[in-house]
Amino acid sequence: MSDLERFFSPRSIAVIGASRDPGSVGHELLRILAENRLRGGFDWRLYAVNPRADSDILGVPTYRSVNEVPGDVDLGVIVTPARYVPSIVEECGLRGIKNLIVISGGFAEVGEEGKRLQDALIRAARRRGMRILGPNCVGVVVPRTGVDTAFLPVEKPFGDGSLESLPRPPPGNISLISQSGAFGVACLDYMAGEGLGLAKFVSYGNKADVDEVDLIGYLADDPETRVIIVYAESIERGREFLEAVRRAVAKKPVVVLKAGRTSAGARAASSHTAALAGSDEVYEAALRQAGAIRVYEVEELFDATKALSMQPPARGRRVAVLTDGGGAGVMATDELESRGASVPRLSGRTLAELERMREEGEIPPISGISNPVDLTGSATDEHFVRSLEVLLGDPGIDGVVVLALHHVPGVTDELPSKLARVAADGGKPVVACDIGQGSYSVAFRDLFDRAGIPAYPTPERAARAMVHLIRYGEALARVSPLRSSPTP
Amino acid sequence: MSDLERFFSPRSIAVIGASRDPGSVGHELLRILAENRLRGGFDWRLYAVNPRADSDILGVPTYRSVNEVPGDVDLGVIVTPARYVPSIVEECGLRGIKNLIVISGGFAEVGEEGKRLQDALIRAARRRGMRILGPNCVGVVVPRTGVDTAFLPVEKPFGDGSLESLPRPPPGNISLISQSGAFGVACLDYMAGEGLGLAKFVSYGNKADVDEVDLIGYLADDPETRVIIVYAESIERGREFLEAVRRAVAKKPVVVLKAGRTSAGARAASSHTAALAGSDEVYEAALRQAGAIRVYEVEELFDATKALSMQPPARGRRVAVLTDGGGAGVMATDELESRGASVPRLSGRTLAELERMREEGEIPPISGISNPVDLTGSATDEHFVRSLEVLLGDPGIDGVVVLALHHVPGVTDELPSKLARVAADGGKPVVACDIGQGSYSVAFRDLFDRAGIPAYPTPERAARAMVHLIRYGEALARVSPLRSSPTP
Repeated sequence: MSDLERFFSPRSIAVIGASRDPGSVGHELLRILAENRLRGGFDWRLYAVNPRADSDILGVPTYRSVNEVPGDVDLGVIVTPARYVPSIVEECGLRGIKNLIVISGGFAEVGEEGKRLQDALIRAARRRGMRILGPNCVGVVVPRTGVDTAFLPVEKPFGDGSLESLPRPPPGNISLISQSGAFGVACLDYMAGEGLGLAKFVSYGNKADVDEVDLIGYLADDPETRVIIVYAESIERGREFLEAVRRAVAKKPVVVLKAGRTSAGARAASSHTAALAGSDEVYEAALRQAGAIRVYEVEELFDATKALSMQPPARGRRVAVLTDGGGAGVMATDELESRGASVPRLSGRTLAELERMREEGEIPPISGISNPVDLTGSATDEHFVRSLEVLLGDPGIDGVVVLALHHVPGVTDELPSKLARVAADGGKPVVACDIGQGSYSVAFRDLFDRAGIPAYPTPERAARAMVHLIRYGEALARVSPLRSSPTP
Repeated sequence: MSDLERFFSPRSIAVIGASRDPGSVGHELLRILAENRLRGGFDWRLYAVNPRADSDILGVPTYRSVNEVPGDVDLGVIVTPARYVPSIVEECGLRGIKNLIVISGGFAEVGEEGKRLQDALIRAARRRGMRILGPNCVGVVVPRTGVDTAFLPVEKPFGDGSLESLPRPPPGNISLISQSGAFGVACLDYMAGEGLGLAKFVSYGNKADVDEVDLIGYLADDPETRVIIVYAESIERGREFLEAVRRAVAKKPVVVLKAGRTSAGARAASSHTAALAGSDEVYEAALRQAGAIRVYEVEELFDATKALSMQPPARGRRVAVLTDGGGAGVMATDELESRGASVPRLSGRTLAELERMREEGEIPPISGISNPVDLTGSATDEHFVRSLEVLLGDPGIDGVVVLALHHVPGVTDELPSKLARVAADGGKPVVACDIGQGSYSVAFRDLFDRAGIPAYPTPERAARAMVHLIRYGEALARVSPLRSSPTP
């Protein structure tokens, strides 16, 4: 078993610095864990530690020190002020706790004095063979086990009522590690709203011990993780990092958002994390070499991840566009071509088949049958299904972008599942788009997503998602030339 | 009065080719107009024309020909098969109708025979001094007058119930003209979902008569239009087009999405509209010269438009970033710098003031006060307000990107209106971001939008919105050097 496993699947957790004061980190964190445990029916034990405790907190058995906790403790979560942390770590080590999450801030990120505290913390951990996540972090969120140390307000007042302030994503196959805690929780919120499922979330803060190298190595072997997202501002162990990415990429895509790519951005990053951000050209080349899917912005991060978590990689760059709106077809074509994919002319055989279909009324008589294939506003579900079959069957086509604008009369809510059945047979990636933000559009895209075809609200975002599936196919061929498809 | 005015504000409308068959264009179009008229309490008269009519259709007085319609008709909407259209146009001309929308397809877009019909149609119109919108178009949507010829299904079955399939945006100050009808209606759906308000929508189809030059000229002088959006695949009257854009830009921003920018995209566009798309380099240079804000994708189109419809242009490229999340600040900085804006160091005076504030507790003691100004997770509404005041007061700063991640405890739902009050005094543009797609994030951004500060779900989209405000400021200085701000 990896020595990181107990961060995600502990049999018992002790919250050290648990508090009775609503709103405090030590209270909110304990409350989330206690509520998760009850709601999810999880069987890990939960303890609270507070030196001034004279009774239980939030119904959780509470002790004055970790020494007094009766059973074994797999995972300690420390939320006390920084100055107490080194001695608590020592105490935890003596108690046999092997995994600690140090939520507390006030370490290397605040200057020299903090740096000394952090060094002391790490010396204690090393002496006792412990693994530390943090300090200055949000910790972990694991929907499947209910382990969740994201202590920020779950709900906040809004207008006359209140709204969920930090929604958690449903369980899923995407894992996310983030150097920034604030950005990490914002990502949870984004994923929850987009319906993207989470395997494991890790905010590793100052990475005094566990860093991205360890975490990528762990997630590469994690059967619940199909896509790894890495948000980093600085990377210290460069060679090991790239090796970890390369090893992971052979098994699953690694999507990297590396902030601080301009000089002003790097200056901002260095002031934020007190770490040298490094030359972006070097990162760019190295990440590419290692097979990472590098993205440059938040939306692209999740658009790419969604596609990679649902669809197989493309084995080449040749994309067909299938549409019921000519303009949208042009836009997708523009975006594909300007990102390095190609929208080639279709093979003679495919063209002949489409022509036959057009003549025999299997697609509208005014359809455009070059690439894009434009079914026009007369399109029906069946026209889409037949055309997708033909396009996926063309050996000169590596993937299909389907632009199914729902506004035309003949397109129904059965289209997504019908197309998903065709796509499942093809072994080639398919992504979809319906333009609009009204209720039908949103629900229609959701049907595509649920059927396993990632759907996007603009042709360009769908096109870029396809480009990422192409890039992963190419990365896979590079890092693992003998295998042309990922392990299932 | 412009000879286009009656397309948008007719005193009477005749639907020619109105039908009794639900689902047909001639039925749906009439129904939308009749319902709008009732619901909105509009006082334009509505007539239906159908040669086989023996009673009213949908409660609308129906006649066998336009000649039989008793009163004056300002606007005729033709939905009959193409072959009847030229003679109907002739008849309308004799009847004194000056404005016609020809919804019907089957003209130049289908080949030689259609081209001949279209020529006949235009000859008739020219003889009688009429203005024609179309053929092969969706026509107009004007929320303020209720004139709406977008005949596609308003509602469609979905699951066990039904959903609104083509929502209309609320009345507002954005006007949109689109060569593609399908893309045009998708834009209406997008705007409705994003809460962007519409002044006038025009789908001009084959532009046999009225084209983008006429429409931009009209909208430039339209007091209800603050931003003009143009979606074009081909532009025939190039010199006049650029002159119309230039004249409009002096009064209001013109945002252009010109599809067919790659060679494959241009090939697709030419197959879609049978028009030569032209070299993109030429368009690029000419559009820039004329002061248009060119965008390259659908999302950017509406992100830019939202900012331009709410905020003043920037007078320079120097942007301050104000954040409560360090990582998000880095991302916004990266995007601003890579798009040609600068995130400069703050002036000595501003730095001194921020330092004083930090010492005296007006902002958190651990705040970063270079640019980005990072208030950290300890940020409160008041910290944001004070910092924004200081940044807007810096003569070396032309605009501010505010990254207000709502997850931190001290940020409340009062922040948007408080920041809007500060921004209103500054005369400089402010845009906002909160990352997340959960209910609080969505509602929080909505508060910003309603307060007049455009808000976006990622730092990069907010940064690009600011870049468009900078570009409009520069365009304005170029086309109208004596004026540095637009007419109100």
